[in-house]
Amino acid sequence: MKHYFAINDIDSLPEWVEEARAIKTEPRQFESLGKGKTIGLLFFNNSLRTRLSTQKAAMNLGMEVIVMNFGSEGWALEYEDGTIMDQGTSEHIKEAAQVISQYCDVIAIRAFASLADKEKDEAELVLNGFKKYASVPVVNMESSVGHPLQALADAITLSEQNTKSKPKVVLSWAPHPKALPHAVANSFVEMMQRQNADFVITHPEGYDLDKRITKDVQIEYDQNKALENADFVYVKNWSSYSDYGQVLNQDAKWMMTKSKLGHAKFMHCLPVRRNVVVEDAVLDSAQSLVIEQANNRTYAAQVVLKKILSDADKL
Amino acid sequence: MKHYFAINDIDSLPEWVEEARAIKTEPRQFESLGKGKTIGLLFFNNSLRTRLSTQKAAMNLGMEVIVMNFGSEGWALEYEDGTIMDQGTSEHIKEAAQVISQYCDVIAIRAFASLADKEKDEAELVLNGFKKYASVPVVNMESSVGHPLQALADAITLSEQNTKSKPKVVLSWAPHPKALPHAVANSFVEMMQRQNADFVITHPEGYDLDKRITKDVQIEYDQNKALENADFVYVKNWSSYSDYGQVLNQDAKWMMTKSKLGHAKFMHCLPVRRNVVVEDAVLDSAQSLVIEQANNRTYAAQVVLKKILSDADKL
Amino acid sequence: MKHYFAINDIDSLPEWVEEARAIKTEPRQFESLGKGKTIGLLFFNNSLRTRLSTQKAAMNLGMEVIVMNFGSEGWALEYEDGTIMDQGTSEHIKEAAQVISQYCDVIAIRAFASLADKEKDEAELVLNGFKKYASVPVVNMESSVGHPLQALADAITLSEQNTKSKPKVVLSWAPHPKALPHAVANSFVEMMQRQNADFVITHPEGYDLDKRITKDVQIEYDQNKALENADFVYVKNWSSYSDYGQVLNQDAKWMMTKSKLGHAKFMHCLPVRRNVVVEDAVLDSAQSLVIEQANNRTYAAQVVLKKILSDADKL
Repeated sequence: MKHYFAINDIDSLPEWVEEARAIKTEPRQFESLGKGKTIGLLFFNNSLRTRLSTQKAAMNLGMEVIVMNFGSEGWALEYEDGTIMDQGTSEHIKEAAQVISQYCDVIAIRAFASLADKEKDEAELVLNGFKKYASVPVVNMESSVGHPLQALADAITLSEQNTKSKPKVVLSWAPHPKALPHAVANSFVEMMQRQNADFVITHPEGYDLDKRITKDVQIEYDQNKALENADFVYVKNWSSYSDYGQVLNQDAKWMMTKSKLGHAKFMHCLPVRRNVVVEDAVLDSAQSLVIEQANNRTYAAQVVLKKILSDADKL
Repeated sequence: MKHYFAINDIDSLPEWVEEARAIKTEPRQFESLGKGKTIGLLFFNNSLRTRLSTQKAAMNLGMEVIVMNFGSEGWALEYEDGTIMDQGTSEHIKEAAQVISQYCDVIAIRAFASLADKEKDEAELVLNGFKKYASVPVVNMESSVGHPLQALADAITLSEQNTKSKPKVVLSWAPHPKALPHAVANSFVEMMQRQNADFVITHPEGYDLDKRITKDVQIEYDQNKALENADFVYVKNWSSYSDYGQVLNQDAKWMMTKSKLGHAKFMHCLPVRRNVVVEDAVLDSAQSLVIEQANNRTYAAQVVLKKILSDADKL
Repeated sequence: MKHYFAINDIDSLPEWVEEARAIKTEPRQFESLGKGKTIGLLFFNNSLRTRLSTQKAAMNLGMEVIVMNFGSEGWALEYEDGTIMDQGTSEHIKEAAQVISQYCDVIAIRAFASLADKEKDEAELVLNGFKKYASVPVVNMESSVGHPLQALADAITLSEQNTKSKPKVVLSWAPHPKALPHAVANSFVEMMQRQNADFVITHPEGYDLDKRITKDVQIEYDQNKALENADFVYVKNWSSYSDYGQVLNQDAKWMMTKSKLGHAKFMHCLPVRRNVVVEDAVLDSAQSLVIEQANNRTYAAQVVLKKILSDADKL
């Protein structure tokens, strides 16, 4: 594997999950693998879990870590070809990506969707720019359309918690005061398509995710019906995809509650707005897996970086 | 010791000071203690000495350091229980503290007083939130009501400089153009209450510190009288406590001068506004201990982290 | 060598270049040299290459790195002597430099020219303040008047690429929408004055650099004439020096093009505005050395730090 861009870059999800769980039992067991290697974490947006868990994963592997808030500490980048750069951008992605590749053995990037321009967001200018021009592996720390480190951590968590041969897993939309990207939901859907599970997505009308991603996954607009006999309920807000980036619905009855949850385990990527997305009673119960999901972010990042470092050694 | 929150967490001040001075003679002598351990330094406010000395102390102990400007790089935190989080805050302290505990073996936090709401400041929402929900030790890098790493460094400095069995130490208020918190003064007072010293606080009327902290310490409104025969003069501005956060007095005659100082040694936590808080002649003289106080910040942090790491090993 | 402030601090440019090229063949060969030593990188301005390459160089030498955005994370510094500090500045350079010297074995600083006040810029308040009051070596990561790490990287690049006994090197001014400092151009000129080269500077009238720096270097206002038979063309914008900090000319015909470049190699310090400073065809051609110049930033910084650490060991 060279880049870790999307769920699609995972050749065998069960093997990766198993490896992550093995790493988790003794996180520093491969700390010689990254010795003398540097990872650059480039943030174009805020981060808590991703920032800390990716650093931690890299340090567990013995890597040196350079963290940079690209927006505030670097130069505004140009992504278009052929531009006369006499406006706000100071440096072209061509130079930036090639240059950073000389200082870092791996580049990890967070660049959120703008939610203003669907076409531009889907072009993944930042990530694809680095992928195109960098000479080293590039890791997606959440881009416009995906958050594959989160989805891998979710797969690890499901594997630890699941006791059934074919559990029922529901992705349930929740209200939120702000317009949020589709990245987490997209990657979770793609990951679930590779699980042996009865997987259902429920959301209000107008909130269908990109059909190219959901494909033939069952969509159920009636939340109660979708939640029946669920084993795992993954709750997440996203803004409308068809009416791109708009908040069409803030109906509090979509909030997840203890009574709706039933006996299912509750999952969320965090940060979560309490009593808007999900009520306190769920998060404060033993049914909530959110803290363990966050914990598994470290091991998701670590298995990704371990594979990148191992493959780089073979070259 | 689990947390280092306040002077009160020091079980034996003389022993800690002695240990810090022993560490100072060979700062890297315990660099295997922190190997494979991570400290997260979370800044909700600006910092120079604390940021650098705490990193240095952790690195001297072989720890890995993650620094995060929580305000600008993370998510706005909610501290109230039961809130419907549909306003400005994106993540609850419950989740944040539990999550960060999984990536860091120690969490150190700087969160200044707002000086706008006394009750809220004294509730120490940030520090107490982390203390309550974190599963790892929490270190106070200056909170609303205390700065115990500074006071420990001050105790080390006093121990190095003092030649008397019972020196006279004066905490002398100074003017300042801005409203400043009480944290440094509070922790210095608490530390001095555990010293064998003749300790006096002097300030204009209206500037009495919290009586629950000063207790029976002598307060003298006449600065000249307070300074008579002083061996050490600790100068510091703070805003009014009774008229909470207000600047009631900017009278330049409270500024410390060479002539007022007499033969005493001069102390200040820095940063200091020259010729407002203290005149150049004092800071530029051999009587000033401010640079050594700052130096001792490293060894204060190091003794605290060493104790935390040692106690964690016993668990 | 104690400080690395300017090209003038290089005792033997050929020897330094040779040493940097030797380091480049095996960058971690001296990683025990910096063990237990800390470098503090203080940024008063944005940075990409300098931030990353200097960290990388320090880590290659085994040093621990503390990075601080002084402007946003620290306190506003006062540089004047005797000021009554009752305005915007919170801490004097005297204290800051002495204090940081206690936490760091080397201090590296970036502080750009304001371009508003020539006299103040030339006084190099930040760098000279640190140089004056720090007790440890200070490294210039671009100051008002010089960027000697860049010029050293340029010398390494020239040495790798040059095949002639006396190549013709042209420094060619280029248009830019914003007013830029003179630092890169100044240090390049000073470096070139120590090379066995036919060196010419070309720029529009009104853009003469400081005569105390250019001395007897040939100035040619006719760009075409200057570029005749050039082996290396270093392109850079700077604002007017005589009409300090003003943009007097944005004439696109000063932009470097493939046809003007002829068979010469193209150099630029980056970031570069494409199709304003230089056309795509140049940057995307094999004649462009800009990526290799950026790569050599690591080895320029590393030879400087190696010399500082080696000399410190001798004391």
